[in-house]
Amino acid sequence: MLDRFPTTLQSECYLEKDRPLLVGVSGGPDSLCLLDVLRRLDYRLVVAHLDHALRPESAEEALTVKRLAESQGAACVIKRQDVNAFAELHGLSLEEAARNVRYQFLFEQAQLYQAQAVAVGHTADDQVETVLMHILRGAGLSGLKGMAFRSLPNSWSQDIPLVRPLLGTWREEVLAYCQANALKPNLDLSNQDIRFYRNRLRRDLIPYLKDYNPRVREVLWRTARLLNDDFAILEHATSLAWQACLRVRSDGAIAFDLQGLREQPVGLQRHLLRRAINWLRPGLRDIDFDAIEHALEFLVNPPRSRRRDLIAGLSLLIEENQFWLFTWEADLPNQGWPQVLEGDVRRLDVPGVLPLGAGWRLSAEITTDVEGARQLAYTNADPFQAWLDNGELNSSLLVRSRQPGDRFRPLGMGGKSLKLADFLVNVKLPRRARAAWPLVVSQDEIVWVPGFRLAHPVRLRGETEEVIKIKLARE
Amino acid sequence: MLDRFPTTLQSECYLEKDRPLLVGVSGGPDSLCLLDVLRRLDYRLVVAHLDHALRPESAEEALTVKRLAESQGAACVIKRQDVNAFAELHGLSLEEAARNVRYQFLFEQAQLYQAQAVAVGHTADDQVETVLMHILRGAGLSGLKGMAFRSLPNSWSQDIPLVRPLLGTWREEVLAYCQANALKPNLDLSNQDIRFYRNRLRRDLIPYLKDYNPRVREVLWRTARLLNDDFAILEHATSLAWQACLRVRSDGAIAFDLQGLREQPVGLQRHLLRRAINWLRPGLRDIDFDAIEHALEFLVNPPRSRRRDLIAGLSLLIEENQFWLFTWEADLPNQGWPQVLEGDVRRLDVPGVLPLGAGWRLSAEITTDVEGARQLAYTNADPFQAWLDNGELNSSLLVRSRQPGDRFRPLGMGGKSLKLADFLVNVKLPRRARAAWPLVVSQDEIVWVPGFRLAHPVRLRGETEEVIKIKLARE
Repeated sequence: MLDRFPTTLQSECYLEKDRPLLVGVSGGPDSLCLLDVLRRLDYRLVVAHLDHALRPESAEEALTVKRLAESQGAACVIKRQDVNAFAELHGLSLEEAARNVRYQFLFEQAQLYQAQAVAVGHTADDQVETVLMHILRGAGLSGLKGMAFRSLPNSWSQDIPLVRPLLGTWREEVLAYCQANALKPNLDLSNQDIRFYRNRLRRDLIPYLKDYNPRVREVLWRTARLLNDDFAILEHATSLAWQACLRVRSDGAIAFDLQGLREQPVGLQRHLLRRAINWLRPGLRDIDFDAIEHALEFLVNPPRSRRRDLIAGLSLLIEENQFWLFTWEADLPNQGWPQVLEGDVRRLDVPGVLPLGAGWRLSAEITTDVEGARQLAYTNADPFQAWLDNGELNSSLLVRSRQPGDRFRPLGMGGKSLKLADFLVNVKLPRRARAAWPLVVSQDEIVWVPGFRLAHPVRLRGETEEVIKIKLARE
Repeated sequence: MLDRFPTTLQSECYLEKDRPLLVGVSGGPDSLCLLDVLRRLDYRLVVAHLDHALRPESAEEALTVKRLAESQGAACVIKRQDVNAFAELHGLSLEEAARNVRYQFLFEQAQLYQAQAVAVGHTADDQVETVLMHILRGAGLSGLKGMAFRSLPNSWSQDIPLVRPLLGTWREEVLAYCQANALKPNLDLSNQDIRFYRNRLRRDLIPYLKDYNPRVREVLWRTARLLNDDFAILEHATSLAWQACLRVRSDGAIAFDLQGLREQPVGLQRHLLRRAINWLRPGLRDIDFDAIEHALEFLVNPPRSRRRDLIAGLSLLIEENQFWLFTWEADLPNQGWPQVLEGDVRRLDVPGVLPLGAGWRLSAEITTDVEGARQLAYTNADPFQAWLDNGELNSSLLVRSRQPGDRFRPLGMGGKSLKLADFLVNVKLPRRARAAWPLVVSQDEIVWVPGFRLAHPVRLRGETEEVIKIKLARE
């Protein structure tokens, strides 16, 4: 066994001998074997042990690990944490709680010791059990691929890899090694309890499956290896699609280009959605299959509201050309829209300048060069400026947000009046932008909806004698 | 059940009502249900039935199918083939033989009837069994993904799709449908025999797995659906890599760019190799895992011979910048090299032209403009032409392939002589090209290795009075 380890450690785990390596040692056969192999191959080790405080004898076992490490001249850190209490506090299963507490501890210590990696004792049998568990519980490729010799990034760190040097070694090899080298593992009773489901797989299911294929363990191990490499290709393809489709990423909200997302193959759409959910809810494990299918259905066939709730306090929204995924607690970014305070009414002097916030300024000036203004108005391409017939204004110009019952007579509709709400829908102003969109009014008549349309009554005509030019611009 | 079918037929199977559709009908519950549903939805059907001739009553059953089709006004084709004999002849299992014979028949008939697709009665349970079988036997993504509602291309056709409208329908739904609609399926006894392994999965393994997850069937079905879409992404990535890496594709041989192949992630290397093997050996099912791993090992770490045998009469060869995969019966393409017959010696007249075959022509001319020739020789960039000092030639010019013991004094090495074999290795002439590479000799001295180097003794010098220009060119 020692023969093939140097290769595994170098070409699969990418470990270097001259940098510290943190080894998680439970005291069971796997971790004792791992520790012994690494020590014989002269790695610089820091031993870390978490006492889960699940059994009375656990403190004594921790001490055994400490003595062992010291006898080998390795640094050793022990921590005792009440995993039962942690599980209750966070509403987790005991297995999940133990896992979270343990890995958090290992990576904290790795950081502290500037370790090149955290090494743990998962064996080939653990791999097979993990794969089977995912097969039975239902998982995509990300579960079926099982574990890797080296994972980076992983759930606990972006820069410290998690390595599993024993991933290609069967449990019986580990036990034989322990015996041959007089290693005395703990009985690891807590493990037996908290890994109930896994132990059933190991003791009942796998032997049963050998009836169907005597080499089923090897076959599942190999499958995991293949799928790991396939998953890497998918991750890469997902990253490319992510770059191509992502439009906004802010605190609690992600927007994809709607068309771009729709044009992706459905497999990539799923992976993009998963990645987005992971980004918004990093703690979430096992993203629900149905949630993703609902999101896909919403993408292809959105309801009239163009909005739906998903899982884990997340919602979907389609707004113009963007597909939003956001947390309920997040304010969707307003994307730099000009907005005014709702209920606030302010006077726009002519000439004058009125700051609206977020760098937006509304300005007005007057001119008697009607012919020049008419030329400019006809050739204008910027919907954020407009020319009004001053003679048609009944009173001074005011700026406010919309009010219930607002109507508007858009230029180009022969003076017909319609509900402002309908007009704003027609011109596709995003729903969220509507409530605080600035409107220029004169008495109760809306004379200009910046960004969209002048009102019919104040258009320039043959009789016009004086023109007001207004402009909304951002610094 | 009839409610959801129109959607499945359109959006999953992409079927049209006004084009013929060939339905494979065994007479069992699945295919009778499928036939009935399609008929009620007004598809234009051609019923096809293969009598496997495995049981005495099979002819009678074929007749039942024929009567049923005729009573529905559908065209019907029946064929009887001795599957047992076919299995023995081709050394196949009965299940595999039945499958081959049946699908070949269905697709032949589909071609004949210009059918838009071949429809078969696989159910959601068949899907789950297929996935489980691949899990147990060991398969990559291409197996784990199971079957698809629509497959094109498939193993039997490049242009006629295979569709499985019942793939989302459970067997109990099918049976309930048959009962409700008074359909009378065959007992399908042959099926029970030839699908022994599958039936074990159905009757023993799946019920057993329900102890671990009561919804294991649904979970496996869903997994297949996810993996199908993931597989499509991988296929696309593979196609891009294929285009980027493929250099030669000829009868029985494929060459990838060596560097390009090495730079691909290992997952894609696997898929490229699988695709190449499939291309060279289209009949081959279940490409061996170890074969691919050996090919990967060879790619990274080729032996000194730079050659190894693989499986199924295929070999690997690394030659300069190319990674070859080829069948033993194939001649590797010589890539248009100039070659002469081994053992043949021919005279090159000066002036004169000597055709070498494959469009190559060796030509020689004489000039006394030594200064001009010197200029040309110094600035020459084409290794397929050279200028020789005629005064240094002992006898007339001959063209031949290499002989045992050949030595060569390359220009630029101060007249040092080395083995021609070593020289050819040094200049990286592909091994296969060496034996018949044309050499220009004068008595026993090699004066020019076309494409590579002039000999030191015949170089142009101050004293040169007469120059021979030789050139090797392709029409």
